[in-house]
Amino acid sequence: MRKEELIENLKKIVGDQYVQTDPEDLYAYSYDATPGHSYMPDVVVSPGTTEEVSKIMKLANENRIPVYTRGSGTNLSAGTAPLKGGIVLLMLRFNKIIDVDLENLIAEVEAGVIVQDINDYIAQFGLIYPPDPGTVKTASLGGTIAENSGGLRGLKYGITKNYVQGLEVVLANGDILHTGGKNVKDVSGYDMTKLFTGSEGTLCIVTKAYLKLVPAPEAQKSMVAVFDTIEDAGRAVSGIIAAKIIPATLEILDNATIRTVEDFMHVGLPTDADAILLIEVDGHPVIVEDDAKKVLAVLKENNAREVTLARDAEHKQQLWTARRMALPCLAKLRPTTFVEDATVPRSKIPAFLNIIKKAAKEHNVTIGTFGHAGDGNMHPTIVCDLRDEEETKRVRAAMDDIFRGAVELGGTLSGEHGIGLGKLPWMELQHGKEGMEAMRAIKRALDPNLILNPGKLLGEC
Amino acid sequence: MRKEELIENLKKIVGDQYVQTDPEDLYAYSYDATPGHSYMPDVVVSPGTTEEVSKIMKLANENRIPVYTRGSGTNLSAGTAPLKGGIVLLMLRFNKIIDVDLENLIAEVEAGVIVQDINDYIAQFGLIYPPDPGTVKTASLGGTIAENSGGLRGLKYGITKNYVQGLEVVLANGDILHTGGKNVKDVSGYDMTKLFTGSEGTLCIVTKAYLKLVPAPEAQKSMVAVFDTIEDAGRAVSGIIAAKIIPATLEILDNATIRTVEDFMHVGLPTDADAILLIEVDGHPVIVEDDAKKVLAVLKENNAREVTLARDAEHKQQLWTARRMALPCLAKLRPTTFVEDATVPRSKIPAFLNIIKKAAKEHNVTIGTFGHAGDGNMHPTIVCDLRDEEETKRVRAAMDDIFRGAVELGGTLSGEHGIGLGKLPWMELQHGKEGMEAMRAIKRALDPNLILNPGKLLGEC
Repeated sequence: MRKEELIENLKKIVGDQYVQTDPEDLYAYSYDATPGHSYMPDVVVSPGTTEEVSKIMKLANENRIPVYTRGSGTNLSAGTAPLKGGIVLLMLRFNKIIDVDLENLIAEVEAGVIVQDINDYIAQFGLIYPPDPGTVKTASLGGTIAENSGGLRGLKYGITKNYVQGLEVVLANGDILHTGGKNVKDVSGYDMTKLFTGSEGTLCIVTKAYLKLVPAPEAQKSMVAVFDTIEDAGRAVSGIIAAKIIPATLEILDNATIRTVEDFMHVGLPTDADAILLIEVDGHPVIVEDDAKKVLAVLKENNAREVTLARDAEHKQQLWTARRMALPCLAKLRPTTFVEDATVPRSKIPAFLNIIKKAAKEHNVTIGTFGHAGDGNMHPTIVCDLRDEEETKRVRAAMDDIFRGAVELGGTLSGEHGIGLGKLPWMELQHGKEGMEAMRAIKRALDPNLILNPGKLLGEC
Repeated sequence: MRKEELIENLKKIVGDQYVQTDPEDLYAYSYDATPGHSYMPDVVVSPGTTEEVSKIMKLANENRIPVYTRGSGTNLSAGTAPLKGGIVLLMLRFNKIIDVDLENLIAEVEAGVIVQDINDYIAQFGLIYPPDPGTVKTASLGGTIAENSGGLRGLKYGITKNYVQGLEVVLANGDILHTGGKNVKDVSGYDMTKLFTGSEGTLCIVTKAYLKLVPAPEAQKSMVAVFDTIEDAGRAVSGIIAAKIIPATLEILDNATIRTVEDFMHVGLPTDADAILLIEVDGHPVIVEDDAKKVLAVLKENNAREVTLARDAEHKQQLWTARRMALPCLAKLRPTTFVEDATVPRSKIPAFLNIIKKAAKEHNVTIGTFGHAGDGNMHPTIVCDLRDEEETKRVRAAMDDIFRGAVELGGTLSGEHGIGLGKLPWMELQHGKEGMEAMRAIKRALDPNLILNPGKLLGEC
């Protein structure tokens, strides 16, 4: 099908005003938040109903046109970059919170709704939707479902997958499926809901979701602890969990990150510290007091040289500046920022941080590491200049050391950003030939013409 | 391949003593806990290692021999019944708890271990593995993973799927896969762990699992509430959740069940009550007190005519006799017992219980209903005599009303027992033609010769 014909057909489905073809528009959708990946699509189309998505998919499937679904384009693994051209399917018109069912604690929400907007809306009922990726104020629900996003509350509350109870999706052939629903327990058939969540747009297009909501915690207590060695910080993390406390948040920042934030922000961070931990416990006020005491004891036992408790919400915000500003400050250092998210079992955090440190030294690259220590989900953040080929080679070599190191420690390439294009080279290392073949078989079964986000997650199928 | 040749080949793989062919042995493995399904296998083989399972699968796959994996055979949907003969693969030699990792709160357990044995072993560390199907003392871990078993603690703690973090499985072609692992967050590739959990032996054979463990609750409080109308009981269930209390257990028994238990047990149950609720809250002692108070208030508001609080563990056991004995007492009424597990959103419980009552009356069959009210997961239990053809027809008609009713209320055919053979006739009603085709495509992709538990879950593929 010629491009002009495709565009005419799309206009017939969604209306002229929802089809974009100007070069500047196409360029705006040629990349996402991942450095080094920009590819021009042929057309950007914004459907308004599930039926329109179905019609678009039938057209694309019959003519073998690649379809790249996109929400806000905030993802960090090039998941929405239109690698092979074709159609960018923009889902932001799916912008309604359809229902909040208070008896069943379920929200019915369209895919284009911004995640923070869900929380802002349900706050009136004393409820929260816990997944909170760093991009919570801009990311669309559909994008976070496609990427199975995590965030700072993952340790206690889990990630997107734990809250998606049902989906409305459109398959490659245009079939509309409804999976799961409002039932807390459901073992009827394969768990398509969980298979689709985190499938990075390679198996279906999510149009609507049923989200599990939970009561907002009544109280919180936050603290910051400073450590002279990363090993002590790591032992403190394991020690907290071993003491059977599951903090809502348990974050770590390494020395490189601390120094960078202090350089830009001048908030009095201890630039000689090897690591700081940020901890928040939440829940019933009595438990919060209890847990905070136990956490303090573990921190002391593991040689925290200083622990500051937040006096109130404002003081907490101040104490957490370092965490909030870690990525923006690191990103200011150099033109290009790679935020990785290799994840290891939490007991392996010190070993993994040492691998990262060694890789930075050996390949002479700048890496600041922060992340969700309770989950073992680290964010080694490499800053560089992609235009410098020699430096880029060194960056790739450091990445290779980091990903191999994570897998050798029993870890995974991605804790929350997904595979997309960036981590493809290491997929077989983690999953083996057999594992890759099993996943590719599923991809081919549900998308035989390979039109959904082709080239991502599994490479060529 | 001739049967004799198959048996010789299997003996070469596992050793003579692990291959059973005597008719009485074959008969013992021809059925499971589901009435009305008995089919003779050709051979029963008990592998001892994953490599042996792999070799058996290669042999079966090349020769297109059906393989029915079996643990303790306690399932209630004919999931292990060897419908098309062939091999029964008995997994009970996989009986080791390999490791309990206290830093990461993960147990590494082989598929043949009995679920209760896991809890007995980890109690010394103050930990629990929450999934607790009624068969917890006899069911094998592998069976509960294949069926994604639930249980009484599902409301607060979730079901098997929520605790299986990684798997070792063997595919139909003999490939050995390792999925997931000890990482709390893992978004690398499709979530094969969740796809395999609950796939009822149709996609793979589970040999080992990584299980998430949680700290045992410090305190519990149990109570029993008596209601004159099922509507009041239903409103109390919704009211408890709407008050943002998530009890560990929230069970309901209907009048037919109450009367049956009282007839057999003479424990002083109120035989004129339309329903009783059994509730347990657990956690930190202070929260438990708090929640118990709030629950009591909701029960009173909704016209509970009597509420009894358990004084201690022994008193609780006494109060819970009715729940524990519900199935055994109902089963004593007639030769055949069908325990169904149709599930609805919890707000629809009164409507669903009325559908069940109406079906019982209209088709003149005896149905006692009890179940996990907090989950909306009911157990309408039909007692009858399968040898009576006319009665069996009426039973099937009542089942049809019940399953259709559940689906119409936005429910699901199965909350925890699986589809197997029993619920096949209603699968398309719930999932649609498109949904069935998508699931069948996955089945064909991973098991092209259709040898893994053929005929189950999806019917003919």
